[in-house]
Amino acid sequence: MRIVSPALMPVCAYTPVMVGFFQRTLRLRTALRHLSPHSTFSSTATAGRPPVDLCGSFLPATSWQSGVCCRKLHSGADGSKPSPAAAPDRRPFSRITREDLDSFRKIVPGRVITDPDLLESSNVDWLKSVRGSSEVLLRPQTTEEVSKILKYCNGRNLALNPQGGNTGLVGGSVPVYDEIVLSTALMNNILTFDGISGILTCQAGCVLENVSIYLEERDYIMPLDLGAKGSCHIGGNVATNAGGLRLLRYGSLHGTVLGLEVVLADGRVLDCLATLRKDNTGYDLKQLFIGSEGTLGVITAVSILCPRKPKSVNVVFLGCETFEQLLKTFQLCRGMLGEIMSAYEFLDSECMRLLNTHLKLPNPISETSGSDPTHDGEKLHNFLEEAMNSSLVTDGTVATEDSKIKALWSMRERVTEALTHDGFTYKYDISLPVERIYQLVTDMREHLGGRAKSVVGYGHVGDGNLHLNITSPAKDPALLAAIEPFVYEWTASCHGSISAEHGLGLKKRNYIYYSKPRQVVALMGDIKAMLDPKGILNPYKTLPDDLK
Amino acid sequence: MRIVSPALMPVCAYTPVMVGFFQRTLRLRTALRHLSPHSTFSSTATAGRPPVDLCGSFLPATSWQSGVCCRKLHSGADGSKPSPAAAPDRRPFSRITREDLDSFRKIVPGRVITDPDLLESSNVDWLKSVRGSSEVLLRPQTTEEVSKILKYCNGRNLALNPQGGNTGLVGGSVPVYDEIVLSTALMNNILTFDGISGILTCQAGCVLENVSIYLEERDYIMPLDLGAKGSCHIGGNVATNAGGLRLLRYGSLHGTVLGLEVVLADGRVLDCLATLRKDNTGYDLKQLFIGSEGTLGVITAVSILCPRKPKSVNVVFLGCETFEQLLKTFQLCRGMLGEIMSAYEFLDSECMRLLNTHLKLPNPISETSGSDPTHDGEKLHNFLEEAMNSSLVTDGTVATEDSKIKALWSMRERVTEALTHDGFTYKYDISLPVERIYQLVTDMREHLGGRAKSVVGYGHVGDGNLHLNITSPAKDPALLAAIEPFVYEWTASCHGSISAEHGLGLKKRNYIYYSKPRQVVALMGDIKAMLDPKGILNPYKTLPDDLK
Repeated sequence: MRIVSPALMPVCAYTPVMVGFFQRTLRLRTALRHLSPHSTFSSTATAGRPPVDLCGSFLPATSWQSGVCCRKLHSGADGSKPSPAAAPDRRPFSRITREDLDSFRKIVPGRVITDPDLLESSNVDWLKSVRGSSEVLLRPQTTEEVSKILKYCNGRNLALNPQGGNTGLVGGSVPVYDEIVLSTALMNNILTFDGISGILTCQAGCVLENVSIYLEERDYIMPLDLGAKGSCHIGGNVATNAGGLRLLRYGSLHGTVLGLEVVLADGRVLDCLATLRKDNTGYDLKQLFIGSEGTLGVITAVSILCPRKPKSVNVVFLGCETFEQLLKTFQLCRGMLGEIMSAYEFLDSECMRLLNTHLKLPNPISETSGSDPTHDGEKLHNFLEEAMNSSLVTDGTVATEDSKIKALWSMRERVTEALTHDGFTYKYDISLPVERIYQLVTDMREHLGGRAKSVVGYGHVGDGNLHLNITSPAKDPALLAAIEPFVYEWTASCHGSISAEHGLGLKKRNYIYYSKPRQVVALMGDIKAMLDPKGILNPYKTLPDDLK
Repeated sequence: MRIVSPALMPVCAYTPVMVGFFQRTLRLRTALRHLSPHSTFSSTATAGRPPVDLCGSFLPATSWQSGVCCRKLHSGADGSKPSPAAAPDRRPFSRITREDLDSFRKIVPGRVITDPDLLESSNVDWLKSVRGSSEVLLRPQTTEEVSKILKYCNGRNLALNPQGGNTGLVGGSVPVYDEIVLSTALMNNILTFDGISGILTCQAGCVLENVSIYLEERDYIMPLDLGAKGSCHIGGNVATNAGGLRLLRYGSLHGTVLGLEVVLADGRVLDCLATLRKDNTGYDLKQLFIGSEGTLGVITAVSILCPRKPKSVNVVFLGCETFEQLLKTFQLCRGMLGEIMSAYEFLDSECMRLLNTHLKLPNPISETSGSDPTHDGEKLHNFLEEAMNSSLVTDGTVATEDSKIKALWSMRERVTEALTHDGFTYKYDISLPVERIYQLVTDMREHLGGRAKSVVGYGHVGDGNLHLNITSPAKDPALLAAIEPFVYEWTASCHGSISAEHGLGLKKRNYIYYSKPRQVVALMGDIKAMLDPKGILNPYKTLPDDLK
């Protein structure tokens, strides 16, 4: 379920955009009369579209070419002292030699890429915020090949950067210096699918959308969905513990991933590729690799529990005056829709303004999916009646037709795009107790005063996950200094997470202490040292620089 | 949803018990007319009832006093060569001295128990299958006290057995020799509950049922439910990764546990007690402790995501001629009931026979829970119509009244009790691809021929979890030799798990290689050595003897 609060701030009057929105959409009570219980939502193929981020947004070609974040991460934000996000010095890994290349050609014949043009897209993240200088891209097809590559690299002290679809937002998926890029792109076979249990096993390089299409043909869906699905790999999803748009309903990958095959730094193959819902024989080691961002091992295969495809999907967009009302509506919705609510997203009035100003879009949402179209429609009707009668919701619209559903969803998905048109964007992915998530936006707005062009909040209310974005006409070190560490300290004071779903990667590694105690980070270091004593796997990422 | 297949074996004719069952219950079509959509199911307090196992069964006082499994685990099953389940030699831990007791009395004044009578219930598991000889029981109230105890014991090389409700079935919750028992019984405070997000934080010693009652008063439920809920502790549930009766609907604890506080062997407190649905800042270390059976650390507090309380509960019991039909009914049920199906359990005709013979019970089940009584009733009606029309189901009954719901559930919950009346019981908890689970029962029955008194199968179809139980008039080493390793080899050949939800504990530790490759077990050993280098935490458990 997705909800907008067009006048989220009690102090904000309805903006013209908001008024415009309400003028263009059906009034709720009208919409209810038109509510057809038989509409279905089928995702469309997105292969070939621009790269998309993990929040469900994409950047147009102009932004993709020009970049939206601090480009010069290797230098300090203000040109003098280095930012905590800047890369540390290159560690003393070996340099690649001609002999190394010859060895790789024996392991993966014809799949050792050294052409700089072909390497370009592997060296740069899609935000164009981090650029490495790798000279070798390896494209194994089998676990055995990955094992041989890692064994060789470990013996030679060569660093590696495992790479899936390269859709990450924190500089975790590209080399920082000359690390070898190990791509899972050719490991894209579906291995097994059990139509009774819904358990799928596939190689790590399967593109999420391809797997989704395969499953939908068999009346199942993947338990996760991301805007980046056209590019991202399931192995990368697991390595980064991707959240996305279905987490509220189907839970995190820690629950839905049933098995992993992982190659350790020294080439050992760890076979935890169980296809069982339950297995209590010893420690659940696969969990260690879920969200470890490629620093503990290379995931080569995944087994995952897939839910049945819902028979009906409805999307509702509602408007609330305040964030408090939005939360009350969320409570009402959980109580009345319960298990058929699959998402509860929000955008604030500032998002609405940018969507309208830059993209000429007028409108947002709330989605339910269930097993019986008639019942879902009735439940929704009852909920909406109650929400209107209790004055929690000022107005809204319901979509059951495919085209309208897509139009509503695009409001949520295109906020990032609208932001890139607004100016240089500072992006934060914050997890907080749900009742606090919007307070950070209002506090930040007050804190920055006139220094920012726009301060907007959107995200996954149901998961307590805020995407806070701040724009300025151009890159602005003084503004950055005003935002950080304020945003991290604020988050830490609420026991929140400074990275809800994007991970730490290169950019956020040194901010880990805002969300994790030293004892915990120290133990992370112990585990890294145990599994990858030479530190060759995805160096400079996830772990803070002060860990030795 | 719970399903019986009274004549699961195509070769079996309906037994009198089955006929009796069908005579006593409403015919399905009659039941449908009586289906009230407004019935609700509220669990009753079970404090003070006999101890219950993790499969939802309990033993009567006579069984509890006499024991049902091999009592003399420390010796070989046939009196000569030691069984892999037998305890290894005592490791060279220190013996407790008077000075140690004085030190403990300073840490937990008034809560150092040395009276052998008071220690008795902590030294014996509830199956009476394992008996330790601990002379000290410590009852800390705070994390700080646990930390001080562990730091002291680690320094002194004293072994500890962390203990929750002591409801485990594999000898994991009691000392093997003279390990100090560290009970979480006095750590029973609920710390926080967030009524918006449904996130609960509590100390590890909270009894599951008490937490459940607390939540139900606030319109929430725990994501797990066990027959043992009146005794088991939430810390123990997490330490053993308990499955239980709601896993099909709400997933495993790896997904629902959001945070843990753990005290490591050396007394370090690991604060991973996040109360966030999403947090991707570094490795998810808490996962290591979920299912580690107290061998890696002592869980002192838990935060967990709780679902909303369902507004309606229906229970359906159906009869199928064959297991194949039972699986087809499961598929139909998943498709038509989808998200409102919370369990799909089964019992075979042999279970029915024992329930009737020993307990005079006539009848079993299928449960749904959802958010709207009317809709759930209609969905159920549609599903049952379809199931009957397709001839998958021969007959059945629907319950919406509390008393009838309880009567149906008791069929499933009292199988273990009926087994104890049938004779000496050999118990196996097996995870398999769902389409294979009953094949093991039929193969075992054929394999044993007339050597066993009864060979019965029941369990959680939705989770692919079979409880295979074999009885004989008395303890029978020859029968045991016929069962093992046959059952383990059969399971391994299907890539199943030899312990779906009970864990390994003392009894099954050496069977781990049937379900886990050597590389994985070796890494378990590395992690144990890293976190507990002296091996003082719950020794002789979970890890096989050949790991050094």
